[in-house]
Amino acid sequence: MQLGMVVGTVVSTRKSENLQGLKLLIVQQLTHTYKPLANYVIAVDVVQAGTGDVVLYSEGSSCRQTAPTDKRPVDGVVMAVVDTWEVGGKEIYNKSKTDSAPL
Amino acid sequence: MQLGMVVGTVVSTRKSENLQGLKLLIVQQLTHTYKPLANYVIAVDVVQAGTGDVVLYSEGSSCRQTAPTDKRPVDGVVMAVVDTWEVGGKEIYNKSKTDSAPL
Amino acid sequence: MQLGMVVGTVVSTRKSENLQGLKLLIVQQLTHTYKPLANYVIAVDVVQAGTGDVVLYSEGSSCRQTAPTDKRPVDGVVMAVVDTWEVGGKEIYNKSKTDSAPL
Amino acid sequence: MQLGMVVGTVVSTRKSENLQGLKLLIVQQLTHTYKPLANYVIAVDVVQAGTGDVVLYSEGSSCRQTAPTDKRPVDGVVMAVVDTWEVGGKEIYNKSKTDSAPL
Amino acid sequence: MQLGMVVGTVVSTRKSENLQGLKLLIVQQLTHTYKPLANYVIAVDVVQAGTGDVVLYSEGSSCRQTAPTDKRPVDGVVMAVVDTWEVGGKEIYNKSKTDSAPL
Repeated sequence: MQLGMVVGTVVSTRKSENLQGLKLLIVQQLTHTYKPLANYVIAVDVVQAGTGDVVLYSEGSSCRQTAPTDKRPVDGVVMAVVDTWEVGGKEIYNKSKTDSAPL
Repeated sequence: MQLGMVVGTVVSTRKSENLQGLKLLIVQQLTHTYKPLANYVIAVDVVQAGTGDVVLYSEGSSCRQTAPTDKRPVDGVVMAVVDTWEVGGKEIYNKSKTDSAPL
Repeated sequence: MQLGMVVGTVVSTRKSENLQGLKLLIVQQLTHTYKPLANYVIAVDVVQAGTGDVVLYSEGSSCRQTAPTDKRPVDGVVMAVVDTWEVGGKEIYNKSKTDSAPL
Repeated sequence: MQLGMVVGTVVSTRKSENLQGLKLLIVQQLTHTYKPLANYVIAVDVVQAGTGDVVLYSEGSSCRQTAPTDKRPVDGVVMAVVDTWEVGGKEIYNKSKTDSAPL
Repeated sequence: MQLGMVVGTVVSTRKSENLQGLKLLIVQQLTHTYKPLANYVIAVDVVQAGTGDVVLYSEGSSCRQTAPTDKRPVDGVVMAVVDTWEVGGKEIYNKSKTDSAPL
């Protein structure tokens, strides 16, 4: 899994039948030191994440191991909203204290 | 999943038996700010996408989670034609308004 | 899937039992504008491809979705020999007209 | 699999139901010559690893082949704490002798 | 699959239960022109490969398609020791003739 920030959404009406009803988020990758990277993924939301949320996401077959995405053509999922993370004992991110995004 | 633009097609007559009947598109990757990247994939079309369409595509095992690609040696699929996407509340792409491709 | 050119072969006698009988090709990746890249894969041939052929190949679990590779430790497969491809309506490659490889 | 060092932890309360109870580690990738790389993964701990431990980790579907991660949306796992490794007959890392991390 | 050279080994006692009994090799990637790359993988040995051997290895789900690795958390496997390979009709590597490694 990687850390990312939800930065937008994608809308599509003409899509594979078993993609219906899934919300598609644009997630920009973050370093573990809370810096934005150029990489992004389009990921299905299963935790009601919104723009500006720092999240945990993954790509690959693990994306289909949640109830809403089971057996669907999903190759990106946001599976958690992050509260805090620390590196070397130092808090890098805290959802309740952070007012501004790094992006 | 990634955002991409359909830029062409591939034709093959000598191929694995369970690839028969699938349309092969050349999809060039786009950034989430609607800029073309050098990366491309050859992806099976399951949504009647055509050249110039902005699409959602994926690679890997999720490609076999659609009816037409089930249990086939497919490692790229176009699973949606994109209508619009926005980043930070700003519309980046709108199918009905866009006359020119970034490529 | 990616476009590539078959450039060579690999021979191994001491190998995993369920790799026996499979032909191993060296495939160099091509851009969709028909330029060689440094990347290569060792891929199992399921379409009788030979050196100089332009092919469609993939990596990952899709490689085991052909009859000869089913349930084998195969992470690369050549699943099609390419006849033609076009980008933006312009023919980039045509097997019957091409005398020289880009490599 | 890759070699890495555990450098931190991630906490999330709002997450996919089948992620509950799993400890999320931040693992920074190491070269096989024991130098840190910029890459990291968020990986589930199944071996009681802690900050500063040199570990073996993987991404992809292999992450779900341990009892605690079976059928969960896990795309990163720490599956071993490394005791020693050697390259060309020379010991590169020894857990019992190493006092300082390379990071 | 990729070509690589076995350059070392990793030892771990505290590891996921279903990793017990597997030998862990450090494999450095080679180009198809027999030059070393910086990339490496930790791969399970299923063909009794040793340091200095040129091998075929893979990552991903194909790694679990051998008897010793079935249903184990293995994301790298050495599935063949290479005898020879040729590119464009020219022999690049021959196990019986090669005395020195490129590394």
